[in-house]
Amino acid sequence: MIEFCLVGGGFIGPLHAANIAAHPGARLRWIVDTNLPAAESLAAKYGGRASADLDAALADPDVHAVMICTPPRTHAAIIERAARAGKAVFCEKPIDLDMDRVTACGKVLDATRTPFFVAFNRRFDPSHRALFDAIRAGEIGRTEMVVLSSRDPEISPPDYVAAMPYGIFYDTMIHDFDMVRWLTGDEPVEIVARTACMLDAASNPHRDPDTAMVLLRMAGGALVHVNSSFRAVYGYDQRIEVFGEKGMLISRNRQPTTVERYGADGVRQDPLLYFFIDRYAESYARELAEFIDALSGKRPPPIGFDDGRRALLIAEAAVASAKSGAPVTLRA
Amino acid sequence: MIEFCLVGGGFIGPLHAANIAAHPGARLRWIVDTNLPAAESLAAKYGGRASADLDAALADPDVHAVMICTPPRTHAAIIERAARAGKAVFCEKPIDLDMDRVTACGKVLDATRTPFFVAFNRRFDPSHRALFDAIRAGEIGRTEMVVLSSRDPEISPPDYVAAMPYGIFYDTMIHDFDMVRWLTGDEPVEIVARTACMLDAASNPHRDPDTAMVLLRMAGGALVHVNSSFRAVYGYDQRIEVFGEKGMLISRNRQPTTVERYGADGVRQDPLLYFFIDRYAESYARELAEFIDALSGKRPPPIGFDDGRRALLIAEAAVASAKSGAPVTLRA
Amino acid sequence: MIEFCLVGGGFIGPLHAANIAAHPGARLRWIVDTNLPAAESLAAKYGGRASADLDAALADPDVHAVMICTPPRTHAAIIERAARAGKAVFCEKPIDLDMDRVTACGKVLDATRTPFFVAFNRRFDPSHRALFDAIRAGEIGRTEMVVLSSRDPEISPPDYVAAMPYGIFYDTMIHDFDMVRWLTGDEPVEIVARTACMLDAASNPHRDPDTAMVLLRMAGGALVHVNSSFRAVYGYDQRIEVFGEKGMLISRNRQPTTVERYGADGVRQDPLLYFFIDRYAESYARELAEFIDALSGKRPPPIGFDDGRRALLIAEAAVASAKSGAPVTLRA
Amino acid sequence: MIEFCLVGGGFIGPLHAANIAAHPGARLRWIVDTNLPAAESLAAKYGGRASADLDAALADPDVHAVMICTPPRTHAAIIERAARAGKAVFCEKPIDLDMDRVTACGKVLDATRTPFFVAFNRRFDPSHRALFDAIRAGEIGRTEMVVLSSRDPEISPPDYVAAMPYGIFYDTMIHDFDMVRWLTGDEPVEIVARTACMLDAASNPHRDPDTAMVLLRMAGGALVHVNSSFRAVYGYDQRIEVFGEKGMLISRNRQPTTVERYGADGVRQDPLLYFFIDRYAESYARELAEFIDALSGKRPPPIGFDDGRRALLIAEAAVASAKSGAPVTLRA
Repeated sequence: MIEFCLVGGGFIGPLHAANIAAHPGARLRWIVDTNLPAAESLAAKYGGRASADLDAALADPDVHAVMICTPPRTHAAIIERAARAGKAVFCEKPIDLDMDRVTACGKVLDATRTPFFVAFNRRFDPSHRALFDAIRAGEIGRTEMVVLSSRDPEISPPDYVAAMPYGIFYDTMIHDFDMVRWLTGDEPVEIVARTACMLDAASNPHRDPDTAMVLLRMAGGALVHVNSSFRAVYGYDQRIEVFGEKGMLISRNRQPTTVERYGADGVRQDPLLYFFIDRYAESYARELAEFIDALSGKRPPPIGFDDGRRALLIAEAAVASAKSGAPVTLRA
Repeated sequence: MIEFCLVGGGFIGPLHAANIAAHPGARLRWIVDTNLPAAESLAAKYGGRASADLDAALADPDVHAVMICTPPRTHAAIIERAARAGKAVFCEKPIDLDMDRVTACGKVLDATRTPFFVAFNRRFDPSHRALFDAIRAGEIGRTEMVVLSSRDPEISPPDYVAAMPYGIFYDTMIHDFDMVRWLTGDEPVEIVARTACMLDAASNPHRDPDTAMVLLRMAGGALVHVNSSFRAVYGYDQRIEVFGEKGMLISRNRQPTTVERYGADGVRQDPLLYFFIDRYAESYARELAEFIDALSGKRPPPIGFDDGRRALLIAEAAVASAKSGAPVTLRA
Repeated sequence: MIEFCLVGGGFIGPLHAANIAAHPGARLRWIVDTNLPAAESLAAKYGGRASADLDAALADPDVHAVMICTPPRTHAAIIERAARAGKAVFCEKPIDLDMDRVTACGKVLDATRTPFFVAFNRRFDPSHRALFDAIRAGEIGRTEMVVLSSRDPEISPPDYVAAMPYGIFYDTMIHDFDMVRWLTGDEPVEIVARTACMLDAASNPHRDPDTAMVLLRMAGGALVHVNSSFRAVYGYDQRIEVFGEKGMLISRNRQPTTVERYGADGVRQDPLLYFFIDRYAESYARELAEFIDALSGKRPPPIGFDDGRRALLIAEAAVASAKSGAPVTLRA
Repeated sequence: MIEFCLVGGGFIGPLHAANIAAHPGARLRWIVDTNLPAAESLAAKYGGRASADLDAALADPDVHAVMICTPPRTHAAIIERAARAGKAVFCEKPIDLDMDRVTACGKVLDATRTPFFVAFNRRFDPSHRALFDAIRAGEIGRTEMVVLSSRDPEISPPDYVAAMPYGIFYDTMIHDFDMVRWLTGDEPVEIVARTACMLDAASNPHRDPDTAMVLLRMAGGALVHVNSSFRAVYGYDQRIEVFGEKGMLISRNRQPTTVERYGADGVRQDPLLYFFIDRYAESYARELAEFIDALSGKRPPPIGFDDGRRALLIAEAAVASAKSGAPVTLRA
């Protein structure tokens, strides 16, 4: 039984708390939030002890793992505290937005030999995973092109946007950058990025980019396109297409029902699943299961610190290219 | 070059005239219609000589084949006249609605050794044909169940309906009865039919059945379902599903475009093709080509008099079952 | 908190035990199985007290509800014992296979005013439910035809088949009979059924029907077709199509992933979900939630004794028609 | 009746000859090819006089229009000769690969006031056209992103490739550049292009790019991605996706049949239509019809010299960017 200290009871915290509670090999031991009522509310529902004091939780020898669900800029510090307390760490992406901070954090993890898992949940989606497996099995031969569409139905609230400029790269496309690395087993050597502000000032008062396209060249020669938007009115649009010498693989979108409605005006199906939590429900449960398996020694952690660092490097390069207009070279 | 006398310039006549004109190995020599202007209009467009006098056309030794596009109740007499004049015959289904009349007609065809083709156009549709080929290739093993949906977007005009009571079996499902025989290579031994009048009195003043379901048992044991309606508001709905020991084959509907429209209310595609002539455009061209090939001695006629007779026998049995309520036995 | 006594730890029992454990408003208090180790295994995983003695469990005043997951022929007796003990009952379908037994059972339920829920899980599937909602909202106007495909990937083991002859109606199509009643809000007045044995003797040694088609006529005039098979090699095939004066609604199948694989030989997608428990995972969770809501007084039980009885009456009539060959009349 | 002189009997020539022959308002008067037997073969099939002498044909006062189907580098000279002879011109794209040559050609067309039509056939595809119409109707509001996949199943023969280096832009993506201009009603202001050689030396001995991705920025701010490959083994892959503030429109691929094959290994459909002539059969017929309508004064020519010139400018910029690595600015 792996006992967890969950830090951060808002946003994605409740989802992870529910998944820990439902996993037969895991248990919530502490829920820590500086906003104590948030922690208490989760504890009432899923068990565990609510607290505003992270140190107290980290001092508990029965805690095996810390799950970090706090805002991005707090991640690095909590990772380091958990690592120094000898706990395994499951951390929501990104590790940090500043590369120096990330590097420092990595040194602590190395020094403490901390098992670390960065939660790029999409790797655990059954459809995306089927693409990975098919590519590895040689089904499409050499990968030549990858096309990713990664669109949110809505932009985040203004204060969230203000706290993370260029979030379209740092927060959204960072998932796609990880997907590309994972699916191809290769690293990008160059990136060109372009952005636009398409939303009106009411929705996007900070005029942070809400629309973006990226062109990547991989070390092995494959070409990659990613596009994102913060207003896909038809739902959370998540598609991956991998083209190779022997064929093409597509991971398509999901809809709430399989219903088709035939009328004089055509055939209508549901809009796409709207919330990322619905779309990736299975992947959240599976990433937790894999982390627990890794801690139980069943297999190595499937995704680690360097994966988080490299995805961030690509996001940084995307921002640089979008700002300067020039292609940016990456070291493979 | 096969020279045609086309009889009947209305309804399906213009389509066949256009196809003859477009076929490199065929030519329209006569267009006969008791309504001379209809014949003249087609002749002006597609060539050939317009006439109201069928005897004159049949006396022309350069006519190889007669194509019959007149109303159903005139078919048998024209077939016999053409056969006695030594012409090959391409006839729209049905041969006749009265089985005795059909039998008599068959004797004339036999005596005159007339090449005869009954135009069950669906056999020549590429998708339906792919099902036939896959079944023959053993792709699904033994056929166990067949499900056909065969729905028109609108009911025929009242006088057309009045001229052919139970047209839902004699005019519409007769195609499906032929499909079942052709796809399974088997004959039905029993039929149960049920009908309903769902349209209002304005659309269906004669209260002839506009909705029907049929359950057939084949000699080889397979079970078959067919359903029809005269008001599929979303277009001409034509689906065939064949289920077997190793899998299932489906021939789906076709739409005018491949467009998908994603909006907040869902994903919308075109309604189905609305007119049977659009839906089966390819099959009409192909059936003509196969008839011409047969006359040119390239291969035997793919569908003949007995196919027309047997489909009609099943339609007759369907009517009998719908009227009595009892299952009707057919001789295989 | 609703406390459950689950009876029957095999087959569907573990699924219901897991769902009770996962529901925030429910708890497993007893797990009863005459095969004690089966009960113990479930209790170890999901909590509750394992026992082979149903009376002990029924004597526990803290048990609110009994969930019956035992073989069909034991249902009626357990229902009556639970009812007399003052417990609410959630029972897997069918109530019994003998109509007199069902009637007797109903009298006990009436006399004891027992809240009763028969688990026609498909009513709680989101796609089927969307059809129900659209029909009720008038989206397709009057319902004119219903077509259901309800096919299992495999036949049950021989002893299961031997214990319930004509299981294709009593065990499988009984779901579809309920679907038809529920979707149309109408009752059938006539049924014709035909069956076949398509599997070989090794798979189906008792030569019980493994393939069936049914034609129903509803009191309101709608025509209904149902087909079933026990060897859909491509997976659990569950489709419902409702055709009406203003359009058509289809609830399609589900697949494990959304992947499309394009190669020189075509475009390939996953086979259908293979196990009914995967296909209807959501509906099992939802039916439990609705039962709990009903017990908590939030709303009336959505499906009751008479629904179970009427579906069985239709199944009985199907068997009678399949045996005699004649249509069987049902009282609406 | 519009009388045509068709120049160039190879490659796309026979298709246009067949379409002219089938059009009720057009007739083939001359077929000119320096390889006389090619011209004779077409004339035998579709009518008209075969010749190797273009001057003779241009001197015929009954010729209204010249249709140019010769290799690209001969287009400009033939256009000018036809224009000076007072004939309308229908020319396969591109006008020429050298911009100065194009400009000179344009001056001749202007001076002679020649009706000119450049055959970007995709504008006449019903599905692409439905996108155009929906965008113009405001269905998706402002266009924010466009994604085009434009992949050939095979690379052209080596001598064809040698005759037109960077054909992936000049010959293939030039269609997409036209699509983008037409669909958005806007002009690109910047382009970044990347290419790769993925085919082996046997298929692509000249090592000309066989794989490419492009990122365009439009004057109005929209971002555009285009990808191409010369080995889509699953067929001719032609997709357009337009994303806007109110939704998304997709024009999907077409397949020879609508058949679905369900087996234990999944659900299989046909590969995509393999030949561009099959895929765009309707668009070739429609572009001819629109050209004829324009000559008949029914409406203005839907696509003209400047469309050909601007698409070529974008292709040139793509080549420049692919060679230098830098983004290339275009004047809107």
